[in-house]
Amino acid sequence: MTSSSAAHPGPAAAPGPEAPSPVVRATRNAAVASLLGLIVLGLAWELVLAPTGSGMLALKVLPLTLPLAGLLKHRMYTYRWVSLLVWLYFTEGVVRAVGDRGLSAVLAGVEIALCLVLFAACAAHVRWRLREARARGPALQPHKALAVVRPADTAQVAEVLRLCRRHGASIVPQGGNTGLVGGSTPDDSGTQVVLSLARMNRVRAIDPANLTMTVEAGCVLQAAQEAAQAQGLLLPLSLAAEGSCTVGGNLATNAGGTQVLRYGSARDLCLGLEVVTADGEVWDGLAGLRKDNTGYDLRHLFIGSEGTLGVITAATLKLQPQPAAITTAWAAVPDLDAAVALLQRAQARLGAGLTGFEVMNDASLALVRRHFPALPKPLPPSPWAVLLEQSDTEGESHARTLFEDLLGAALEDGVISDAAVAENLEQSRAMWHLRESIPLAQAEEGPNVKHDISVPVSRIPAFVAATDAALSAAYPGVCLIDFGHLGDGNLHYNVQAPAGADGAAFLREHEKAINRQVYDAVRAHGGSISAEHGIGLLKRDVLPDYKSPVALALMARIKQALDPQGLLNPGRVLR
Amino acid sequence: MTSSSAAHPGPAAAPGPEAPSPVVRATRNAAVASLLGLIVLGLAWELVLAPTGSGMLALKVLPLTLPLAGLLKHRMYTYRWVSLLVWLYFTEGVVRAVGDRGLSAVLAGVEIALCLVLFAACAAHVRWRLREARARGPALQPHKALAVVRPADTAQVAEVLRLCRRHGASIVPQGGNTGLVGGSTPDDSGTQVVLSLARMNRVRAIDPANLTMTVEAGCVLQAAQEAAQAQGLLLPLSLAAEGSCTVGGNLATNAGGTQVLRYGSARDLCLGLEVVTADGEVWDGLAGLRKDNTGYDLRHLFIGSEGTLGVITAATLKLQPQPAAITTAWAAVPDLDAAVALLQRAQARLGAGLTGFEVMNDASLALVRRHFPALPKPLPPSPWAVLLEQSDTEGESHARTLFEDLLGAALEDGVISDAAVAENLEQSRAMWHLRESIPLAQAEEGPNVKHDISVPVSRIPAFVAATDAALSAAYPGVCLIDFGHLGDGNLHYNVQAPAGADGAAFLREHEKAINRQVYDAVRAHGGSISAEHGIGLLKRDVLPDYKSPVALALMARIKQALDPQGLLNPGRVLR
Repeated sequence: MTSSSAAHPGPAAAPGPEAPSPVVRATRNAAVASLLGLIVLGLAWELVLAPTGSGMLALKVLPLTLPLAGLLKHRMYTYRWVSLLVWLYFTEGVVRAVGDRGLSAVLAGVEIALCLVLFAACAAHVRWRLREARARGPALQPHKALAVVRPADTAQVAEVLRLCRRHGASIVPQGGNTGLVGGSTPDDSGTQVVLSLARMNRVRAIDPANLTMTVEAGCVLQAAQEAAQAQGLLLPLSLAAEGSCTVGGNLATNAGGTQVLRYGSARDLCLGLEVVTADGEVWDGLAGLRKDNTGYDLRHLFIGSEGTLGVITAATLKLQPQPAAITTAWAAVPDLDAAVALLQRAQARLGAGLTGFEVMNDASLALVRRHFPALPKPLPPSPWAVLLEQSDTEGESHARTLFEDLLGAALEDGVISDAAVAENLEQSRAMWHLRESIPLAQAEEGPNVKHDISVPVSRIPAFVAATDAALSAAYPGVCLIDFGHLGDGNLHYNVQAPAGADGAAFLREHEKAINRQVYDAVRAHGGSISAEHGIGLLKRDVLPDYKSPVALALMARIKQALDPQGLLNPGRVLR
Repeated sequence: MTSSSAAHPGPAAAPGPEAPSPVVRATRNAAVASLLGLIVLGLAWELVLAPTGSGMLALKVLPLTLPLAGLLKHRMYTYRWVSLLVWLYFTEGVVRAVGDRGLSAVLAGVEIALCLVLFAACAAHVRWRLREARARGPALQPHKALAVVRPADTAQVAEVLRLCRRHGASIVPQGGNTGLVGGSTPDDSGTQVVLSLARMNRVRAIDPANLTMTVEAGCVLQAAQEAAQAQGLLLPLSLAAEGSCTVGGNLATNAGGTQVLRYGSARDLCLGLEVVTADGEVWDGLAGLRKDNTGYDLRHLFIGSEGTLGVITAATLKLQPQPAAITTAWAAVPDLDAAVALLQRAQARLGAGLTGFEVMNDASLALVRRHFPALPKPLPPSPWAVLLEQSDTEGESHARTLFEDLLGAALEDGVISDAAVAENLEQSRAMWHLRESIPLAQAEEGPNVKHDISVPVSRIPAFVAATDAALSAAYPGVCLIDFGHLGDGNLHYNVQAPAGADGAAFLREHEKAINRQVYDAVRAHGGSISAEHGIGLLKRDVLPDYKSPVALALMARIKQALDPQGLLNPGRVLR
């Protein structure tokens, strides 16, 4: 076994925050340009063109240099105070334009003009950003914390929770802040304490004979993966945000990813937790036991509760031996029924060796072809494509033989129309890169209505057929980007505005109705409106329409029992 | 793939209830004999030897025939009322012995003697049984129900719970009643309603493309396994009681078994539940979804709660494709360190193909050799033996080759001292039979102190070394029967009285102290005092000594929130 052949080829690195819209870019450019103009003007005026005598007055441009970095980095707060600061310079310009003569008055006029441009750019920028945030839903609205606390250990977390309890301050636990449903950001009241686990990032222990590792909540997932790999072991949780999300957040949200088919979600990898309760008490449940039937399973109650029942401070995770080889294959299928049939064959033939099974419709891959034309394509376009990943304990050639047998038989039986098995790690990576580029290509294409849904695997074809047809009828020309983890019955079922339409306007107008239509179809097919992203703030208000009222009532009772003051991440998951 | 090669070779059928002790057998025989004597005497006297004139008086023996079946079946209640009834016949005998003459007076003397024997036998029987029950702990003490209800569907279960709630009657849910900790039997107050799920035993659906099945709680595990197998699928939950335990009970207690290493405990196989709450409301959470992040995981809260939070009425379970072949191997190892080393090698080499890894010390196998000398032995005795099971998707010869490679290398490196790979299904079965005969051989040997404990796999050798040494020092000559699921860190660590000692007396005198010593060692090694059997009544009172008080307080709050009247299986798990 060589470490290079066992290296996991996917998923690609996390995509950054969504690319700024043209209006946002334009207003930033105008703001930066006018700010630079004011600085140059100030220096030139005082030192060269019409000096007032004291060169010291050139120092008045100093305050203008401070916001430069903030404007470039899209800091909302900077845009806001610049739009106030600018009125000082505007006033100076007006005073001089009225009092001075000649060149000085002309320069004052230029100053006034630049000030007005800067103000307008800042104001428009802020206004547009807020509007976009509202269009995206509550999760991404502006927020303001009372304080951000960064405890260094569990005792400090407990102390913070006791203090907050005494003062009735609510707490928003935060890991890598990569969640997509607004679970880890405070509201805009300025009364919530953000509890960042970022400093609690140690790997406390690795036990190779027990196949476990104990890590603190703030440990970045990739760092945990690398620590396991250094011992020849595999932490089989893998998702696009792994370079910045944290283990605590992964557990609080029960993260999924690309290997759930074989290894399960975050909850399935967790043997024990350390949790600080709403009372500020520490539950040390970090046992690395595979069997423990001594009472209620508190671990699974905290996992996936999105910080509303307690603060996870550390966890003991299951590890696996590193497979000897990981290989991928790409198959073209005529429809989703064939994809499900291929999945069944792959599960029977490869057993637990099958670690990934992703599907993509051609609309998804067409977006990738359009925006990233240079990416190598394993096969010509087909209605649907499947990416299979196999982890093998015997070696690369054994894995490839199994793949070739499986895909050869499927080709012969007409289940697939074409297939390619990766010849080497580079080809494997290229296949994964194609799959992982779909969300990036979507971002390039413009805003879209995103869904993270699951239905039983057997009902995926019927769900997609019915929902695609209904949406195409309701919104002619709409582009349906269907891709995801078929092995888990989990699709990222995204709806993009018709070609040529204004994406943002389409979202503003139709997002709610589209959500409703998709979620109703999910319910009709016995599915879930949040497969792996959670509820947070974003889906909280639609949850009661799609979840059993008995379950919601039980959840409310549990919340009341464990957090009677309602201080832990209030308003998330439950109203 | 042939169905015969894929048939799972183990575990053996469930052992029956513990065999009655010699005293119990002797008192029963005396009671039955004297009762029969009274009947024969009565008939002979009235009809032949010294008839009083009216043959009708022979009918007086009629009441004596009624208890015969109950005495033979060890019914405690029968023994109790017979010991009262007998005084009527005693009185008759005394009256006749005083008033009559000749043969009649002699027969009256015989009647008096038989009555006294019968009374003594019944009284001794009851007294001894109660004493044995007390020695075995609270779980097995006599119990008495207010009523046994046997609902046919979920709506009837809900109706029962609403009725009980209205009348403040507490409920003991019962499946196959095979639990070992007294979780499914009522107390002796006569106020508890036993809610038997036995009639709810349907397989509601099997979805091969989704790899799931939905079964009712009262479905016997083996029936569920067979229903899956009929579709070419595997329900990978396997334990000794599978012929009589039910799926609902398996989930309520989070049952383990022999394949946890690969497939997990009962909770890991469950995707969804249908539960009736304490209020008599039905939560339909039967979705067959592999990913669902819409709120708290109620499923895992009910699983393992032993009927104290709600009544499980149905479940959706994960299935697997049937493996193409299941093979077993037997290895001799010098010590437990070597067994752990072999486990690590097997996990790396076979990956998920390794579905079982059982260890047994030679004392366990010596008991089997003594009581079942005819069973074939794969290898000569060694300090420890390991049984490995492999499930292969490719076929028998592939599996055997993998085993031979693994064991050959281990032999070469001195990890094992000898090994045998089963050549066929019969040899596989024989290996499993040997392993499963240990509890039966123990029952033959006499009463023993049983433990079902887990520690991290890496700490098993240190735990066993320390605890074996401490117990041998405290109880010279004691016999330590150590065997179990090493892959899960789960041992059945049983303590048998020294050879020649009175087992029952040893238990009465030392059981509590031995429990304490073993559980203290478990705690010192970071383990659990109940790995797979649960808490029930039997371990409820020791639990607070070994479980985090924070966890116990959280459990109590949850119990209060979901069952505020305390009607669901009261006194189990929590006080």
